[in-house]
Amino acid sequence: MSKIRIGICGYGNLGRAAEEELKKNPDMELVAVFTRRDDLKVASNVPTVNIANAEEWKDKIDVMLMCGGSAKDLPVQSPQMAKIFNIVDSFDTHADIPTHLQNVDKSAKESGKLALISIGWDPGLFSLMRLYFSTIIPNGSTYTFWGDGVSQGHSDAIRTIKGVKKAIQYTLPVKSAIEKVRRGEGENLTTRDKHTRLCYVVVEEGADKADIERQIKEMPKYFSDYDTTVNFITEEEFDKNHSKLPHGGNVIHQGKTGENTNQMMELTLKLDSNPEFTSSILVAFARAAYRLAQHGKTGARTIFDVPPALISPMNRDEIIKALM
Amino acid sequence: MSKIRIGICGYGNLGRAAEEELKKNPDMELVAVFTRRDDLKVASNVPTVNIANAEEWKDKIDVMLMCGGSAKDLPVQSPQMAKIFNIVDSFDTHADIPTHLQNVDKSAKESGKLALISIGWDPGLFSLMRLYFSTIIPNGSTYTFWGDGVSQGHSDAIRTIKGVKKAIQYTLPVKSAIEKVRRGEGENLTTRDKHTRLCYVVVEEGADKADIERQIKEMPKYFSDYDTTVNFITEEEFDKNHSKLPHGGNVIHQGKTGENTNQMMELTLKLDSNPEFTSSILVAFARAAYRLAQHGKTGARTIFDVPPALISPMNRDEIIKALM
Repeated sequence: MSKIRIGICGYGNLGRAAEEELKKNPDMELVAVFTRRDDLKVASNVPTVNIANAEEWKDKIDVMLMCGGSAKDLPVQSPQMAKIFNIVDSFDTHADIPTHLQNVDKSAKESGKLALISIGWDPGLFSLMRLYFSTIIPNGSTYTFWGDGVSQGHSDAIRTIKGVKKAIQYTLPVKSAIEKVRRGEGENLTTRDKHTRLCYVVVEEGADKADIERQIKEMPKYFSDYDTTVNFITEEEFDKNHSKLPHGGNVIHQGKTGENTNQMMELTLKLDSNPEFTSSILVAFARAAYRLAQHGKTGARTIFDVPPALISPMNRDEIIKALM
Repeated sequence: MSKIRIGICGYGNLGRAAEEELKKNPDMELVAVFTRRDDLKVASNVPTVNIANAEEWKDKIDVMLMCGGSAKDLPVQSPQMAKIFNIVDSFDTHADIPTHLQNVDKSAKESGKLALISIGWDPGLFSLMRLYFSTIIPNGSTYTFWGDGVSQGHSDAIRTIKGVKKAIQYTLPVKSAIEKVRRGEGENLTTRDKHTRLCYVVVEEGADKADIERQIKEMPKYFSDYDTTVNFITEEEFDKNHSKLPHGGNVIHQGKTGENTNQMMELTLKLDSNPEFTSSILVAFARAAYRLAQHGKTGARTIFDVPPALISPMNRDEIIKALM
């Protein structure tokens, strides 16, 4: 059987991880890496292609994995690439998902291609669990906790402060809050009760640490609603201990059936590498995108629309035998 | 909008629970309860109908919830009812699922109806997690633990022993084995390492307790591969402390991305009532069965085939806004 021909668009943390995870899926093969850079070297023995020339690869790629960032890359690149290829992206700016879906859908419908958007773990697997859990036990509440893990967005926010050279932010769930939610006592938890934020910062020489700490802690949206700890460390310590991108979290649904019967469902993720995990999800759902396209489906869809069997390399009988 | 008209077939623990959980889903209404008994009284103000007369309700029921047992009822009733109605069942004899699927599929294809089979938590939600987890991280191992919970099959098995008046069997996962699996050290665990079995037994007057204990512990398939504890108690204590049907468990997948990066996914269920939880799943998937049938789909399908959005009472935009 011929392999599913995969392209990778964007070669940062996520793109490099996707390149690696594709090797664990023998029914797929990486065909080319697409980039805006002219001098890119990639690990695999495949060509690099300037995004401007993507059209030339129209018939050589079955699914394009969109591995750019959600802030600037994907809002432009996903609609653009969906005019040429079936795509999968992990667009994760929650509030902008409806608009992104609409933009990608328009491109994909015009080109007759299939696009899966916001395929990651949150949004993604966590969204799925929120759907299954809250639908199955409607008389209940769903809570999401994140961490321990690195938030790229919050790390970036700290780096915008003058005098900051390097910064990383760990989101930590409050263990006692998780326990409360599991017991069905989560209803009065505030944002501050559920997570704390831990920052490691390297400053430029002569910077005013006290002022930087104040600026971080008072930053609206990112930090002001949380108990935040700021640690100033040396660049050497930063490079040694804070180069990894672990993450994870819990989706917990506690509800009642009957008169007053407790029912608790929980998904836990403990990820030693966020980009490697996210890229694994992109790869699995590339298979679903390919099959949906083969079945003549077009337009943009989310993880909620994908029949689970379509992500598996196994056929229906094998899935039932091995996994049911 | 008109409500989805639901029938319940079988009025044991599961059927009674389904009757109750339907009330939490305002887009559905219970229309009738189907039974083999002539004198059945049900809690709701709906008619009871003898299964033999089901055909007369052909146009009055949108989805039939099959609430009989997997051993004797569903293998006969699901194919039978799928000739008349769209159905959802929770058939849970893992080894016989392919045959059951085939039998129900034949009926449903002939009648042009839609059937969802083996919709519960294991098989069901747990099967789904085994699929998502093992596909996303192919370089890994998936383990399922059950309990603490009552196994009806094992309780029934004890009751077949002469001299046993009442019996209940709790399946207990071994906590240290769960911890090993989470750390990625599960590969050498045996059946005996993963679960223990705890039995409470009430005997007939004059019964030989030592011999009953021996018979339980040596029973092949059910007990001989496990460390089993048998406690003999009074009928009074049994009735007071062992009338509930709690259950639950964990699906744990531990695997690697990249060279050697640990990634752990886990689903946990803690259910104070197994039949109430299972009936809630049947109810949610009745909505999916209804919609698949509306879309002209026929034949028998499993939880692997159902696009997740179809179980939700919300429309696509609402789901994305509330849950993505």
